[in-house]
Amino acid sequence: MKQNKDILIYGKHPVELAIKNPHRTIKEIYITKQALDEIEIPKNIPIHPADNRLLENMVGHEAVHQGVVAVCHPLSNPDLNQILRDLKDVDRALLIVLDQVSDPRNIGAILRSSVAFGASAVIIPEAGSPSETGAMAKAASGALDLIPLVRVANLARTLDILKKSDFWCVGMDGYAHDTIGNSKLPKRCVLVLGSEDGMRDLTKKSCDMLVKLPMNPAIESLNVSIAAAIAMYEWTR
Amino acid sequence: MKQNKDILIYGKHPVELAIKNPHRTIKEIYITKQALDEIEIPKNIPIHPADNRLLENMVGHEAVHQGVVAVCHPLSNPDLNQILRDLKDVDRALLIVLDQVSDPRNIGAILRSSVAFGASAVIIPEAGSPSETGAMAKAASGALDLIPLVRVANLARTLDILKKSDFWCVGMDGYAHDTIGNSKLPKRCVLVLGSEDGMRDLTKKSCDMLVKLPMNPAIESLNVSIAAAIAMYEWTR
Repeated sequence: MKQNKDILIYGKHPVELAIKNPHRTIKEIYITKQALDEIEIPKNIPIHPADNRLLENMVGHEAVHQGVVAVCHPLSNPDLNQILRDLKDVDRALLIVLDQVSDPRNIGAILRSSVAFGASAVIIPEAGSPSETGAMAKAASGALDLIPLVRVANLARTLDILKKSDFWCVGMDGYAHDTIGNSKLPKRCVLVLGSEDGMRDLTKKSCDMLVKLPMNPAIESLNVSIAAAIAMYEWTR
Repeated sequence: MKQNKDILIYGKHPVELAIKNPHRTIKEIYITKQALDEIEIPKNIPIHPADNRLLENMVGHEAVHQGVVAVCHPLSNPDLNQILRDLKDVDRALLIVLDQVSDPRNIGAILRSSVAFGASAVIIPEAGSPSETGAMAKAASGALDLIPLVRVANLARTLDILKKSDFWCVGMDGYAHDTIGNSKLPKRCVLVLGSEDGMRDLTKKSCDMLVKLPMNPAIESLNVSIAAAIAMYEWTR
């Protein structure tokens, strides 16, 4: 059986969130004496005493580990049908769909913004999307343990399922006619975003409406994590 | 004399912007036969024929170089007084001030968003801010050659100068009372943002008003490049 690589989660708040997440398996925790006084760690998780130098060797010199690094299994794939059942009678709900976004840092940043703005899940295609990595966890800043990241086999078919579940699919597209600020975003909203090259045609065709962000044409596009955050912010307004 | 390191700018659009920027010195360009047919390069810039493999060795396997890499001098520090003179009679103008933002990727992403939303300059303190690097140029996606990145010796004093130049300084602070959406942002606006740990006290005290982004308290903060983009977007509305 193919075993996914362990990932390192570090910093007090992200490690606390990993501990609280019932779906997360933590193999072991490396921690300084000082941090051990500040974080409550369940008895069943093995603890290794560590100094800052060891932790820096694990996660890099620039990482803000705050004295604690947890070695974790990647999360298993959440069940989209269960998520949709939980949202069945919810008046306002937001889902994020990312097509061809390959940089794990962008996905991590989008998870973080998704939690900040109250989205219920982030959905990516299995093919072409990165697996859960330390870089993703770092950019997510704890959000990997707060919001489901769902991998689906077929994105266009998933959008059809979402539409049948009373969601409206809104594609962010630089060539759209309407700006997002002038469009009334649906209460049950799926925001669909592509990479720098935009989303695939089939994905775009599956959207109910397309909107763009107003911007200076001197710059070709915004980073996808920035476009996603602005769209989510606009939905919350 | 201390010589700043060369930086590599790559991709067709960013290299074209570097060529068009009168303040940018390009030492040499490495380019494929195919890309040479598509980009006009002034006669005074030395050209080296290259294949994709050489370019990948220069900028990394994942970088989208599109057949062209320019070896450039970092830009010299723009003159803030000149920028303020140019903006003297402008009714609506936006400046971005970053306090203690140390990740060059965040600064690059903020430069890119600043161009997208029509800001006139990004201002950072000399001390503690990263110099112009390839990582910053990559995240800026050409924006380094479109908007001045000004380094100042003393940020609080600079904010005073901006206020005397008829700008209002709006600090983004998670503990502020008012949300940005409920606040009327000034036409001549300086948006002031700090790093994860927030801006320094002296910087905060120098602001005319403080506003926050509305967000789920489960997540401690947004990435500074995301907070900056949303604030700029809100200003354009």
